[in-house]
Amino acid sequence: MRDLTWSPSEKVIAKRAFDMALNKELESVMGKVREMAGEIRRPADLWAMEQFLAKCRNEIDDKYDYRYSQLPIIFGRLIREGWLTEDDLSGLGPGKMDYIRTIAKI
Amino acid sequence: MRDLTWSPSEKVIAKRAFDMALNKELESVMGKVREMAGEIRRPADLWAMEQFLAKCRNEIDDKYDYRYSQLPIIFGRLIREGWLTEDDLSGLGPGKMDYIRTIAKI
Repeated sequence: MRDLTWSPSEKVIAKRAFDMALNKELESVMGKVREMAGEIRRPADLWAMEQFLAKCRNEIDDKYDYRYSQLPIIFGRLIREGWLTEDDLSGLGPGKMDYIRTIAKI
Repeated sequence: MRDLTWSPSEKVIAKRAFDMALNKELESVMGKVREMAGEIRRPADLWAMEQFLAKCRNEIDDKYDYRYSQLPIIFGRLIREGWLTEDDLSGLGPGKMDYIRTIAKI
């Protein structure tokens, strides 16, 4: 990792992309929960929903760790999972982008 | 507690009432969850739903303890909470019914 220093403009880009991905992912969970709720037929469906919510909460808590040292890894993962595109990070330094692309392909 | 022995016919009545109350309560949770899902606007609503589900599961697990020694206490509580009526227990011996009524009024 070469350019771990984040310029003010990179910080703005990073924060916007981070928040955008988090909101997209949370919207997706909200949509999925509404869908699951419409399909509740048996008590087991309730406890499956509880487990799903706990899993989502834990995954999101673990993943969205806003430390600059972690951001390239997080952004790489978010691209891999489809929550961000490279365009959303346009403006970050080439060293960071190379590292993010590498992580995205893992 | 006087007549803690359950006759075969009392066991049938108890099982039917127990299952009926449990089903009613589970149906109520399912209805409430469908309603909550329709009102999800923010991520916090998701985690509130997760907490609600966990609370319901724990309360239901604790409450519905099908041991004959516990049934009068459970039936009393279920009457107090509105999941059963005295009529649902019609056919149980007068000693049990007295005890159930006492618990129901606590």
